[in-house]
Amino acid sequence: MAVTRHEVRSGAYFDSVVLMQLQKALAELPGVRDAGVVMATPANCELLTASGFALETITAGPDDLLIMVTADDEGTATGAIAQVDELLRRRRSADVAQSFRPRSLATAAQQLPAARWVLVSVPGRYAASVAEEALELGKHVFLYSDNVPLDDEVRLKQKAREKGLLLMGPDCGTAIVNGVGLGFANRVRRGPIGLVAASGTGLQAITVAIHNQGGGVSQALGTGGRDLKAEVGGISTLQALDLLRRDPQTEVVVLVSKPPDPAVARQVLGAALHAQKPVVVCYLGYAPPARRLGDLYFAAGLEDAAKLAAGLSQQPAPPETSITRNIAGGYMRGLFSGGTLAYEALLALQELLQPLYSNVATRPEQRLADSFRSQGHTIVDLGEDEFTQGRLHPMMDNDLRLRRLQQEAADPETGLILLDVVLGEGAHPDPSAELAPAIRKTLQKRDDLELTVLLVGTDEDPQGLDLQAERLHESGASVFHSSAEALAYVARRLAPAPTPPASELPLADFQGELAAINVGLESFYDSLQGQGATAVQVAWRPPAGGNEKLMGILARMKRDRH
Amino acid sequence: MAVTRHEVRSGAYFDSVVLMQLQKALAELPGVRDAGVVMATPANCELLTASGFALETITAGPDDLLIMVTADDEGTATGAIAQVDELLRRRRSADVAQSFRPRSLATAAQQLPAARWVLVSVPGRYAASVAEEALELGKHVFLYSDNVPLDDEVRLKQKAREKGLLLMGPDCGTAIVNGVGLGFANRVRRGPIGLVAASGTGLQAITVAIHNQGGGVSQALGTGGRDLKAEVGGISTLQALDLLRRDPQTEVVVLVSKPPDPAVARQVLGAALHAQKPVVVCYLGYAPPARRLGDLYFAAGLEDAAKLAAGLSQQPAPPETSITRNIAGGYMRGLFSGGTLAYEALLALQELLQPLYSNVATRPEQRLADSFRSQGHTIVDLGEDEFTQGRLHPMMDNDLRLRRLQQEAADPETGLILLDVVLGEGAHPDPSAELAPAIRKTLQKRDDLELTVLLVGTDEDPQGLDLQAERLHESGASVFHSSAEALAYVARRLAPAPTPPASELPLADFQGELAAINVGLESFYDSLQGQGATAVQVAWRPPAGGNEKLMGILARMKRDRH
Repeated sequence: MAVTRHEVRSGAYFDSVVLMQLQKALAELPGVRDAGVVMATPANCELLTASGFALETITAGPDDLLIMVTADDEGTATGAIAQVDELLRRRRSADVAQSFRPRSLATAAQQLPAARWVLVSVPGRYAASVAEEALELGKHVFLYSDNVPLDDEVRLKQKAREKGLLLMGPDCGTAIVNGVGLGFANRVRRGPIGLVAASGTGLQAITVAIHNQGGGVSQALGTGGRDLKAEVGGISTLQALDLLRRDPQTEVVVLVSKPPDPAVARQVLGAALHAQKPVVVCYLGYAPPARRLGDLYFAAGLEDAAKLAAGLSQQPAPPETSITRNIAGGYMRGLFSGGTLAYEALLALQELLQPLYSNVATRPEQRLADSFRSQGHTIVDLGEDEFTQGRLHPMMDNDLRLRRLQQEAADPETGLILLDVVLGEGAHPDPSAELAPAIRKTLQKRDDLELTVLLVGTDEDPQGLDLQAERLHESGASVFHSSAEALAYVARRLAPAPTPPASELPLADFQGELAAINVGLESFYDSLQGQGATAVQVAWRPPAGGNEKLMGILARMKRDRH
Repeated sequence: MAVTRHEVRSGAYFDSVVLMQLQKALAELPGVRDAGVVMATPANCELLTASGFALETITAGPDDLLIMVTADDEGTATGAIAQVDELLRRRRSADVAQSFRPRSLATAAQQLPAARWVLVSVPGRYAASVAEEALELGKHVFLYSDNVPLDDEVRLKQKAREKGLLLMGPDCGTAIVNGVGLGFANRVRRGPIGLVAASGTGLQAITVAIHNQGGGVSQALGTGGRDLKAEVGGISTLQALDLLRRDPQTEVVVLVSKPPDPAVARQVLGAALHAQKPVVVCYLGYAPPARRLGDLYFAAGLEDAAKLAAGLSQQPAPPETSITRNIAGGYMRGLFSGGTLAYEALLALQELLQPLYSNVATRPEQRLADSFRSQGHTIVDLGEDEFTQGRLHPMMDNDLRLRRLQQEAADPETGLILLDVVLGEGAHPDPSAELAPAIRKTLQKRDDLELTVLLVGTDEDPQGLDLQAERLHESGASVFHSSAEALAYVARRLAPAPTPPASELPLADFQGELAAINVGLESFYDSLQGQGATAVQVAWRPPAGGNEKLMGILARMKRDRH
């Protein structure tokens, strides 16, 4: 009959790697059937219970080390537990080199002054203060630790931005800086694709897919999963995007995350739209505004993003239509006859233009109060029921649009009017005969106004595609045959250009050979060395032996000194 | 000084085309500055006001014809209005052929027995009864009219489905049946792409883009904008999809609409997944589950859908991985170490598998009650905080997964276990050395269980990609290197196959020369004839002269007779 014995060690700190190794060593002893060596968090206790260990009579908390052994008989179980100290000692003597390790970040920084990077993977409650120390030493931080409070993240990132430093994380699993993987990272070809990701495995899966398709990576920068939340405001993402925009080795940028806060998304997409490089946006679980919007490409999933980026890096995108009239600004007014074209314009532009209203909006805050009056940027579907009861559809009858065109042109806030013209069977036999003169008259009256037409039709349509396009063009309108191009044009004309960060990230820190200081998981140090980077491991121990009260006092004393 | 005069004609019915023509004729008279001829709906009155007409003193309702003229002087204004009858008469005498037209749908059907189609574009309140009559005569219906009540739509579509007929609409703007455009339709090349759309201009924009890229269209079928709502349940969409699945001339199918009701979406995607043809899904404003999921391709926008479809019709897709173990069914249990891989799996599979739960679900109804116990189909991210506090990440330490694997295999409801294995720097140095033996043991114990592995890594990763793949494969698992392929495999294995409609739509009605009966807008009749189709126009007038009360009595009498 199997026998289970356990031991609790209170308030002891152990590296998670050490615990895993100890558990394996115990489980491999002859006669031992199963072993568990964990910090006694509720989750770990539940896991042990699910594996058949009986914990009812054991009193242990999250700061206690719990050792459990199930063996063939009592003697084996007790004997196994008795070997714990010996097994731990054996591990320690193998690491004799550890005695020469610096015990503080400051000492490590003196020892390796070339280090521009600090990797932090200590337990979450200690992580913010280690990261802060690194920033104060002028180092970029790769913050692997999770369970770091959100307000610490905001404070640290603001500090980093002020100093022109990048803080990746917290809970940043993956980065590749100038060819060297930090944390979990696959070995991939160098190349022209630069990535910014709020997701660790997302970054791994994309870089792997890029490599497997023959592409390569310039930099892969993590931001932590909360960077695009409203509270953080995308600080790291915007810094990283700006860096990749300036980086001559990056030709295509990829952004990866779950859907951002809407205001943050607008800022990031605005910056991406003006990056003057193709930017592939992969927001998982996000309704993409379009497949392409100018230099922005929206991917559905990680592999799709990799394929898009690899394709763009091998074959440059066709150039954008140049801007015709250099007008001052103002609002866009989209007057649509086609309902789906209106809806597609709304989907695309609502991510970039603000405030935007429509009579076909699905977001309540975007509902146009009165379909007959525009406000801010407006997209109105003139084929909706409120307009068509008791009159012909605007695809057949231009009267409604011609009147609305005059109304918009009379509004000094209008800067750009967007019209769709849909040809084909059943539609008006010659729309440009009525629209072109009205457009010409409108533009003559207001030289600070721009008119853009999306013309939908084929060369076989009865109205004559070329004739319609020519007449509309001659009236002074910019004519597009593709809604993606028309909408990208409008977006670039009217979306605000981003304000660059006050302190730029220095490009040099992302080039040349990587030197780094590692605080925490030793396997990350081994991995740095294995990749040929120069690294120093800090022999980190929790301050005050992990005693929370003492730590609080130390922290306050330190703050008072500054 | 300009003078405005008006006239109200109570309870008169006029075709919208006639009203537009009358307005234009009045506006072109010498001395006339502007004219409005509309049914006095609130919207039309507001439009006239916005154009500068003063309506304060006029009493007119939605059933009244309002004629307004602004002219240089009183005489011209009054004179213009006096010409209304003359102008209307002139139009009528031009249509002398109208006298030979059938006055009822039944007579028209006798006159053109070859007609399998009826186009209905009478005002909304009359449309349901005309469409119903057409169905009773055994005809397919293209229902252009809008403002048809939802319960009428449901009743009509159920009747159509029973009879093996297709009802497109209400508010169906566009269709192309065997090369002939109905309603608003562009002239496009014939070809192997078949479309089903809940959107009129959407269908136009896609067919135009397909044509402009050198592709061609077999059928383009409309369903009306509400077909994919829960109440209607996608009746027309599912009928049309089934038709295109059987149609030998259709090689690629495209579905277009706004995002459907979730349950309807699952049904439609399930049917599409088993169509054995590539299906491009273009749901506007919808977060796509993936770019590709087996034979399903998800497009972001109309032009993207057209490009995808044109590409697929020119270059067939690579074949799917064949299914290895033919197991009975059961639930999927996804045990992930990579958070983003788990999230991507959730996004993809939640559209197809039901019920699905996860500890990383964003939809509240999908939240796993207890991360440590699976229910239904389950996706669990073992790298979440509840698992990693006080222990190593599962990418470094397999202990957690090995224990959960045993737990799932012990559950008789488990039919398929999905694991990710992520290689690279920082990760476990040899994951398959621990996972493969556990997989082999599990499959030996349960021969009704399937094991699927998503392996993420490059040929340069330190663990050895080929070695890892080989060991996992030899253990009996299906190994995939692409998450799209792995997820498509799981979806096809576990998503239920659709039940085909009881009465199939007859393919013959969509082939051969088109003959149709048109009830309503005369321009649709002209367009049919212009395209070489055989057509009959019904000289339709509202029953009981448009008198609502009398209509109600007539309808009740008719119902009583049946």
